[in-house]
Amino acid sequence: MIHAILFDLDDTLFDATSLAEKARRAAIESMIEKGLEGITAEKGYEILNEVVREYGSNYSRHFDMFLKRLQHYSLKLVSVAIITYHRVKVQDIRLYPDVFRFLQNLRHMTSCELGLITDGLPIKQYEKVIRLGLDTFFERVVISDEIGIRKPNPELFTHSLSLLDIEPGKALYVGDNYANDMIPAKSVGMKTCFVHRGGKHDIEIDSNAVDFEIHDFSELWKKIHKMLPSK
Amino acid sequence: MIHAILFDLDDTLFDATSLAEKARRAAIESMIEKGLEGITAEKGYEILNEVVREYGSNYSRHFDMFLKRLQHYSLKLVSVAIITYHRVKVQDIRLYPDVFRFLQNLRHMTSCELGLITDGLPIKQYEKVIRLGLDTFFERVVISDEIGIRKPNPELFTHSLSLLDIEPGKALYVGDNYANDMIPAKSVGMKTCFVHRGGKHDIEIDSNAVDFEIHDFSELWKKIHKMLPSK
Repeated sequence: MIHAILFDLDDTLFDATSLAEKARRAAIESMIEKGLEGITAEKGYEILNEVVREYGSNYSRHFDMFLKRLQHYSLKLVSVAIITYHRVKVQDIRLYPDVFRFLQNLRHMTSCELGLITDGLPIKQYEKVIRLGLDTFFERVVISDEIGIRKPNPELFTHSLSLLDIEPGKALYVGDNYANDMIPAKSVGMKTCFVHRGGKHDIEIDSNAVDFEIHDFSELWKKIHKMLPSK
Repeated sequence: MIHAILFDLDDTLFDATSLAEKARRAAIESMIEKGLEGITAEKGYEILNEVVREYGSNYSRHFDMFLKRLQHYSLKLVSVAIITYHRVKVQDIRLYPDVFRFLQNLRHMTSCELGLITDGLPIKQYEKVIRLGLDTFFERVVISDEIGIRKPNPELFTHSLSLLDIEPGKALYVGDNYANDMIPAKSVGMKTCFVHRGGKHDIEIDSNAVDFEIHDFSELWKKIHKMLPSK
């Protein structure tokens, strides 16, 4: 029996990687439109990605560093980039198409408890939750930086389970990252589901750390709906 | 002859005070809608304004402090408030109705140089410039925190004039704040125009620090268009 399902957020419930890519490309194009010279959009995108890799994805001044690197710093271009980047991030964020139906099924047909365990800056992660409309589904959202424990530390999973008051063996964790999601969740005794979404963490596995392997959530529903407590 | 006109931004070219008020009220209402209990929107708005006064308007965690003060802190409500606040600020920002025509007249009928001198966080001020479409009018934007000199320090005005390479006596400064705009601009030898926009800085004056007193920019156009270099 599975009494609770906990999910990873980015690239498990929505396509975070493509969204960030699209927003960064749009930001580059808007800077070129507003006067950034001597560089193609494609080359600009490459350099911006270098900055993101070097400074980390949660750094708040990617565009400043990008323009400094090009020796073309201006407040105007930074502002233009930020405006465009956020516009795309706000307008284009949406759940993977299979997610909403799956969550509705869980809520309407089962009494399964639902939660989220995600890394990242608390306010940014919660903004995604709200914009995706997920706050109505998840009573319990655990964001690692809010409690000071990050993936893949298994403590994060133990802590989350204790908040829900659920035994590990009765909970399923669903994620797209083998090392950060599957290994620690399994190590504390949870059931695990590895989602192949085709992103950078989508790897071939042959492991007893994974109970279910799926490509979308309709597959998962078929596999587990008989193991869920009905309403 | 007036060869350059420099403007204050907030509450001179757009109604910054009303916009902030509207955004804060909307944020309070969204928190109440999403579960903030035991408080009316009106009372909430009062308390939020207390927070803004105590922590300063450029502090980045007003909503955190507001909710802590109510002993009702939650990441969800902070996120809800931030989303709503920014949505209103982005959607509802617009120039005072007389501003656009005035700037168009200046650009199409005169060869007057245009600039902006404003206090505030550089990136936030420049965002307003872009969202208001002012970047097409102002080649030169001076934001005090970018150069490390704040109003009412007259150096800010001297510095801006030197960037434009204009003698003070040939430049006009337009602002809504007597102490921060009129006094320092006049002290460096600029002509000055005091705009009565009906906001908190709108005071009765009887002073030789002000050359023009107006209620909207069509009045200013009538008063000065003969003093401007025609194209």
